[in-house]
Amino acid sequence: MTRCLHTVGAWRRLRVRADLDNLEIGFVPTLGALHRGHASLIERSLAQNDVTVLSVFLNPTQFSDGADLESYPASFFADRETAERLGVDYLFCPSSEEMYPNGYRYRVVENELSRSLCGEHRPGHFDGVLTVVLKLLHIIRPTRAYFGEKDFQQLELVRGLVRDFFLDVAIVACPTLRHEDGLAVSSRNALLSRPQRRQAALFAALLGSRRQPREIRRELEAKGFEVEYIQDSTHRRFGAVRLGGIRLIDNVPLDSLMEETR
Amino acid sequence: MTRCLHTVGAWRRLRVRADLDNLEIGFVPTLGALHRGHASLIERSLAQNDVTVLSVFLNPTQFSDGADLESYPASFFADRETAERLGVDYLFCPSSEEMYPNGYRYRVVENELSRSLCGEHRPGHFDGVLTVVLKLLHIIRPTRAYFGEKDFQQLELVRGLVRDFFLDVAIVACPTLRHEDGLAVSSRNALLSRPQRRQAALFAALLGSRRQPREIRRELEAKGFEVEYIQDSTHRRFGAVRLGGIRLIDNVPLDSLMEETR
Repeated sequence: MTRCLHTVGAWRRLRVRADLDNLEIGFVPTLGALHRGHASLIERSLAQNDVTVLSVFLNPTQFSDGADLESYPASFFADRETAERLGVDYLFCPSSEEMYPNGYRYRVVENELSRSLCGEHRPGHFDGVLTVVLKLLHIIRPTRAYFGEKDFQQLELVRGLVRDFFLDVAIVACPTLRHEDGLAVSSRNALLSRPQRRQAALFAALLGSRRQPREIRRELEAKGFEVEYIQDSTHRRFGAVRLGGIRLIDNVPLDSLMEETR
Repeated sequence: MTRCLHTVGAWRRLRVRADLDNLEIGFVPTLGALHRGHASLIERSLAQNDVTVLSVFLNPTQFSDGADLESYPASFFADRETAERLGVDYLFCPSSEEMYPNGYRYRVVENELSRSLCGEHRPGHFDGVLTVVLKLLHIIRPTRAYFGEKDFQQLELVRGLVRDFFLDVAIVACPTLRHEDGLAVSSRNALLSRPQRRQAALFAALLGSRRQPREIRRELEAKGFEVEYIQDSTHRRFGAVRLGGIRLIDNVPLDSLMEETR
């Protein structure tokens, strides 16, 4: 049975009582609205650790746009059921007041990678991510923490955080899961209408194609996408678009680009 | 005998080999140039813990002014002798490259208290302090960490850091030590000429007097001090001055203010 904890104090007391110090703890931090992408992280954690902790916390500081936060899909009861079904040991679901007892006075910032790609289009987003990840790592004190490659920039920033601040945790990267039509599995997909959902597949298809970023942008714009960026880095291609206001991101290794099949 | 460690890896390996996980570890972080103020922190740590770790690291990121960093008194061999004499168990003295392997990309910032008093006059100073303190706490993983009330604003900011980021360490505050003439003991005092050193006592005397901050500023300026701030908060009076370019800070509880004896 999944045990649900709402406060830092409750988790810490349990950590001592259950003598978790001598066990390997896997940790999967999420914003909730769990889907099979999250499930793959949880399953990996269950396989690699004695104990798995899942956190569901819709972190307000990583949403610069209040409307975006408001519309983010939240489904606590379904998430708790998912945790139960998968066999998660502990579900940590704190309030904002619990995580930010003095507001947002202290934060972690990164001044290079966090300013590009998604960071350029969502100012302050990664400050919020890094701040909450650091807090959660301090609270949970896991052996391993699991992050999806779907949010590759976030993954890289968390890896840098762990390295630069000498955190004693292994960051485990898990591959992006995709729907049959190629669209990356994401909580935000639930916000798409049926026609938008069908159209969204084009984003994944073009991003993974051998075309140049400029061409991809033009093609997506012609098809009604609002394109934030399509950008190649050394080994990876990154893209972010909006479809009827709903933001979708994705990334693929450059050496996986495919000829298009039409 | 004090054991000297220069790298994070060496300390971590030793921490495991010496089975320090089950001992109480006291930690005294310093910039070096140890004086009896530091000695009082070290003695307190030795009394309260099984093991005491002293760090000597002249943290570049808390000096916005290169000349200030250059002129800061450094005396590694004397510091190592002091550590030996006092009975410090481990001396952690990393290089800048060890502490900032990727430069200063990641940092901790605080956006209220860190902007006032010393923060106003030394932009970025407390970002550097908080960043290095967090790194050191992650590396050393002490039970208790010792900070002097001489740097009261720093002490308050570190307390907030520990609270807001859920760090599992007790912050122990140690009272300011003073010379016979009242001047707070500080590494920077060594930079004062003899006449400046005599004059510096006036700063402590006026700060601790019942006069109003405005009056104190006027008086100090009349005596050749360059005054950065003299400022009362709820319970404490804070001051920072320069004497021939050398920066001195001090603070006293408001309920300790004395009538002047002339």
